[in-house]
Amino acid sequence: MSFASRLWKAVDKKNTPAMVGLDSRLDHLPEPFASRAQDGPVEAAAALVDYHRALIDILAEHIAVIKPQSAFFELLGPHGWQACGDAIAYAKDRGLIVLLDAKRGDIGSTSKAYAQALLGGGFEHAFPASDALTLNPYLGDDAAEPFLKIAKEQQAGLFFLVKTSNPGASLFQNHGSPPLAEIVAKQVHRWGEETRNDAGWSDIGAVVGATRPEELARFRKLMPHTPLLLPGFGFQGGTADGLSAAFDKKGHGALVNSSRGILWAYKREDLFHLATWEARTEAAVIEMKEQLASVTRVQQ
Amino acid sequence: MSFASRLWKAVDKKNTPAMVGLDSRLDHLPEPFASRAQDGPVEAAAALVDYHRALIDILAEHIAVIKPQSAFFELLGPHGWQACGDAIAYAKDRGLIVLLDAKRGDIGSTSKAYAQALLGGGFEHAFPASDALTLNPYLGDDAAEPFLKIAKEQQAGLFFLVKTSNPGASLFQNHGSPPLAEIVAKQVHRWGEETRNDAGWSDIGAVVGATRPEELARFRKLMPHTPLLLPGFGFQGGTADGLSAAFDKKGHGALVNSSRGILWAYKREDLFHLATWEARTEAAVIEMKEQLASVTRVQQ
Repeated sequence: MSFASRLWKAVDKKNTPAMVGLDSRLDHLPEPFASRAQDGPVEAAAALVDYHRALIDILAEHIAVIKPQSAFFELLGPHGWQACGDAIAYAKDRGLIVLLDAKRGDIGSTSKAYAQALLGGGFEHAFPASDALTLNPYLGDDAAEPFLKIAKEQQAGLFFLVKTSNPGASLFQNHGSPPLAEIVAKQVHRWGEETRNDAGWSDIGAVVGATRPEELARFRKLMPHTPLLLPGFGFQGGTADGLSAAFDKKGHGALVNSSRGILWAYKREDLFHLATWEARTEAAVIEMKEQLASVTRVQQ
Repeated sequence: MSFASRLWKAVDKKNTPAMVGLDSRLDHLPEPFASRAQDGPVEAAAALVDYHRALIDILAEHIAVIKPQSAFFELLGPHGWQACGDAIAYAKDRGLIVLLDAKRGDIGSTSKAYAQALLGGGFEHAFPASDALTLNPYLGDDAAEPFLKIAKEQQAGLFFLVKTSNPGASLFQNHGSPPLAEIVAKQVHRWGEETRNDAGWSDIGAVVGATRPEELARFRKLMPHTPLLLPGFGFQGGTADGLSAAFDKKGHGALVNSSRGILWAYKREDLFHLATWEARTEAAVIEMKEQLASVTRVQQ
């Protein structure tokens, strides 16, 4: 089954486009993981393994997709990559779709190695294959080609950065007329054309950190068949309002990410009536689902 | 000592701007490493460790800088990161400057994790710090900020992609007027201004895969104080002719990279009179130095 077909099927099953990012910072873990992580990289990686397994057990009950952020694993060197692989494999076993947020991109022969490493199982199953991967488009079409090829072979997804959610995104992404981000959007649309499934959805997605509803609508128009990854729900200032342009009437079309909004929920005073970090995390996930439900209801 | 000062001192000592990229593909290793690498990721990583140590012993006699390519290590998962760390630590012990080619880039809080992971030793010395790192500029200035901060703290260098050497580079990098790559070049120049050393050189570099001498001269003019990384010498079609615009009269200003031109030299029939892969590799390095010497001689 194509990536997009698997994705929307999983989204339907959990009845939410909510995605949680595993941007797990050692100094913001709940106890006992935070204390365990202080003893060194080996102990920190072991703490991350246990934390992520417990977290994934909660997430798998409520949402369809998780997004591990490779940078926070890379901080622990080889031990971190081991912990990252464990989280990917464990989440897949629990039926979650795993979108690895690594924002890779290089010239063709090197892109091929990255694609094989992160989507193809690496050399002789050295690393669990993710279902999808984020990419940086700066190097152009021949640099994207090996990712497109291996994604097709693996029925995996790709999410190219089009417009990012950070305040400084406009510096280069708005350069020119039409702005660069729109040129990239059109190219992502083209890259995905031949992968479209029966419902019309492509396997090649885009990261769109649109800050205004009309901007999101504009990108949706430029990429009508492209799954969108909408970052920054919660902490980066995004709200459910104004996301509806990304979705069709079935509630398909986009994933909405929250990382710190969920991972740091255990610190929320308004959730202190819940005794454990697990219960507070679950409450935050359910809350996010409810907030997003209003977006898809608008469409129906 | 600032990164640029260390860099040109090392270049002076070896009397060459030649840099060798460790883009080590398992199916292109010399024997016995190629055979050893076939048995699985653990064996492949061990073969890479031994190969790179032997290679670095050769390179350290002749050149100042090596550039490990993270993608080829990532293929081996955690084992590959172990091998990458070994190569970085071993090369630094041998007095080489290590520029890790990882082309990272993300929003601010994540960029901070990457910078700490790859330039700052990771969490509790989880991974050996490289002397410099390649970065993708697409996300803008706030995304670059944590890299600039940590590079300054560590007296490390950064090399932002400005214009890449692949055929498809122009798709996005030439967008707009002036073209995006020139806008990025001006920004890289600004990012580096406050790091300039006594001779005027900045610690913030740029990757410039210029295909024509006048294009290289244009980028040098836009970034007069910026160390340039010139990729693609040899296999990607670059030659020593036309590189002189990147250098000053002392032979400072740029590093010229060859990866396959050196790593695959053991297959060259015209070097078959030399019995070992080590001897052929050394001959190719000496040949590259001679070819590049003509560039810096022009300046004197």
